[in-house]
Amino acid sequence: MTQDSELFTIPARRGRAARLSQGQSIQIVNTHGAQVVDTWAFSTEDPREFMSMEHIRPTLTRIFPHAGDDLVSNRRRPILHFAEDTSPGVHDTLMAACDDYRYGLLGCTEYHDNCTDNLFAALRNVGFPVTECPSPLNLWMNIPVDGAGGTTWGVPASKPGDHVVLRAEMDCVVAMSCCPQDILPINGEARAPTEAHYRILG
Amino acid sequence: MTQDSELFTIPARRGRAARLSQGQSIQIVNTHGAQVVDTWAFSTEDPREFMSMEHIRPTLTRIFPHAGDDLVSNRRRPILHFAEDTSPGVHDTLMAACDDYRYGLLGCTEYHDNCTDNLFAALRNVGFPVTECPSPLNLWMNIPVDGAGGTTWGVPASKPGDHVVLRAEMDCVVAMSCCPQDILPINGEARAPTEAHYRILG
Repeated sequence: MTQDSELFTIPARRGRAARLSQGQSIQIVNTHGAQVVDTWAFSTEDPREFMSMEHIRPTLTRIFPHAGDDLVSNRRRPILHFAEDTSPGVHDTLMAACDDYRYGLLGCTEYHDNCTDNLFAALRNVGFPVTECPSPLNLWMNIPVDGAGGTTWGVPASKPGDHVVLRAEMDCVVAMSCCPQDILPINGEARAPTEAHYRILG
Repeated sequence: MTQDSELFTIPARRGRAARLSQGQSIQIVNTHGAQVVDTWAFSTEDPREFMSMEHIRPTLTRIFPHAGDDLVSNRRRPILHFAEDTSPGVHDTLMAACDDYRYGLLGCTEYHDNCTDNLFAALRNVGFPVTECPSPLNLWMNIPVDGAGGTTWGVPASKPGDHVVLRAEMDCVVAMSCCPQDILPINGEARAPTEAHYRILG
C-alpha cells in the first residue's frame, strides 16, 4: 500500500468528505489515538443509496464489523470493503450521530458542534448535499454491550497512529466527522476531541 | 384500558397503518404467538421525523426497549411510549426491515413479499407516502447478542394473544408489517408467517 499520497486533516470537532472511484481506498488515521470518527458512504450515482448499519448487521450476523468484512448499503450491496485495521478492532454500529438535540438533552443550553451538522457541511463542501443523516459507522467508538443488552460509553481501545483502510466497492462519497463529544468519555477520559487525518490510496 | 374498540387485521405477509392523535394508543396483538411485527411511527406534522432505533439506543443505553420506555424520534423527542407488554419483552432494534434485495441474497429468484414494500404500501393506503424505510422496531423478533457481538436468528419468546400497547406522544402515523420471512426461523420454527391484529384505544 502506497503511503505517498497527500495527508488531509479532519480538524477537531469538524467534518470532511472525499469522492472515491470504485477500487480506490481511503485510509483514516486516529492521529492522537482516542478520537471517534463517525463515517458515512453514499453512492455517487444515487445519494439515496448509502452505507447502512441496520443492513450491515444482518449481513454479518454481528453488531461489530471487522477488517475483511464487506460493508453494505441500504440496497444490501457492498459499498465499502473494510480492508485494513491496525487498531484492536473496536468500532460501533449502534449509536446515532450526535446532534444538537442530543447535546440539549445532555444539558447544553447553547449550540454544540455535532456530527450530524458536520456531515451536512462536509457534503455541501464537496457539492453532494443530502438531507438525511444515516446511522454512521462510528470508527473507534467503544460501546460494550452486556448480556442484558445494556450499553456503556467506553473509551477507545485504539492508540495514536492506528488506521483503517476502506476500499470503495462502487463510486462513492465518504464523509467523516471528528466527533465533538466532550461530555461523555467516548473520545477518551480527557473529554478533549482532537483532529484526525485521511489520505486517498490508489 | 377499554377493549371495546374495533379489532383490525394485519393479514399475513402484509402491512397496515393507522393515524393516532397524541394521547391515543395502539394495541398490537400477536394473535398466533410467533409473528414478528415490524413497526414504525412517523410524525403526522412532518414525515421527516420518525421513530429511530439508533436514537432510541443511546437514550435508553440499552439495545432492547422495555414497557415503560419512551421511544424517541430522530429528533430525540418521545414519539411513542411503550405502555404495556404482556409478552416476555423480547423485541429487536438491530435489524433492517426485510426487502426484496434480502430475499435475493437468501436465494429467492422471484419477488418475495417484504416488510419494506409493506411499509410503503400501508402508508400509501392512509394517504401518507414516504420514500425511505427507517430501521423498524421489530416487535417479538428475538435476536440474541453474544459477548462477541454475534447475533442469532431466534424464534419469538411470545405466546398466542400476547400484546403490546404503544401510546402516541405526538400526532403520528403508525405502520406495521407482519413479516413475511419464511426462510429464517424468526417467525417460528414452522417458518409460516401469520396474521396479527391491532386496535386503537382512547
